[in-house]
Amino acid sequence: MNDSNSTAMRPSAPYYAVIFTSQRTTDDETGYARMAERMDQLARQQPGFLGVESSRDKDGSGITISYWTDLASIRAWRDNSEHRSAQEKGKQKWYESFHVRICRVEQSHSFPPAG
Amino acid sequence: MNDSNSTAMRPSAPYYAVIFTSQRTTDDETGYARMAERMDQLARQQPGFLGVESSRDKDGSGITISYWTDLASIRAWRDNSEHRSAQEKGKQKWYESFHVRICRVEQSHSFPPAG
Repeated sequence: MNDSNSTAMRPSAPYYAVIFTSQRTTDDETGYARMAERMDQLARQQPGFLGVESSRDKDGSGITISYWTDLASIRAWRDNSEHRSAQEKGKQKWYESFHVRICRVEQSHSFPPAG
Repeated sequence: MNDSNSTAMRPSAPYYAVIFTSQRTTDDETGYARMAERMDQLARQQPGFLGVESSRDKDGSGITISYWTDLASIRAWRDNSEHRSAQEKGKQKWYESFHVRICRVEQSHSFPPAG
């Protein structure tokens, strides 16, 4: 799981989360891994980006959650041209199916409690 | 990933998601697995439950997202006595750390598009 900045990432609600759940095809492992790493890098450079957490099981099903300050930042990232191109290739060859949910984070708590 | 009902689970927004991200200790694999399965069963029986998706990596970090019709259902599940007992044991031995986020799902879309 790539959550290197999730522990530090404890902004006050409200903020936004994009839940991306997907089922991979068995195609193009190398190209997929390269794209996933590039999109992770690129997302981190976007205005309003707060953090990302992701996990993929051996069966090819995965969850990625990215966190953002506001909806405008999410729309700008969706419309980023390099991201658009990755989205198209995703539909053509990398994903059997996916589901995107845009969410407003309204409450949160942690263990151990934040100092 | 346990997402047996996630494909079918496409209610219209708004509904609610509980994002639970956690880091396991290395303790009590058997007890943890038994609890996780029981909580999955029990959650599915609660009023307002819509679905659950989860994934845990080999390094012990995991994401579980449960979906609910409303906040009252989430509170009732949080306060369920068997669930409360599992939460306590979680803090005592199963989790090094966790983060809970209560979210309102405002928009969603799928690929392939819903028929």
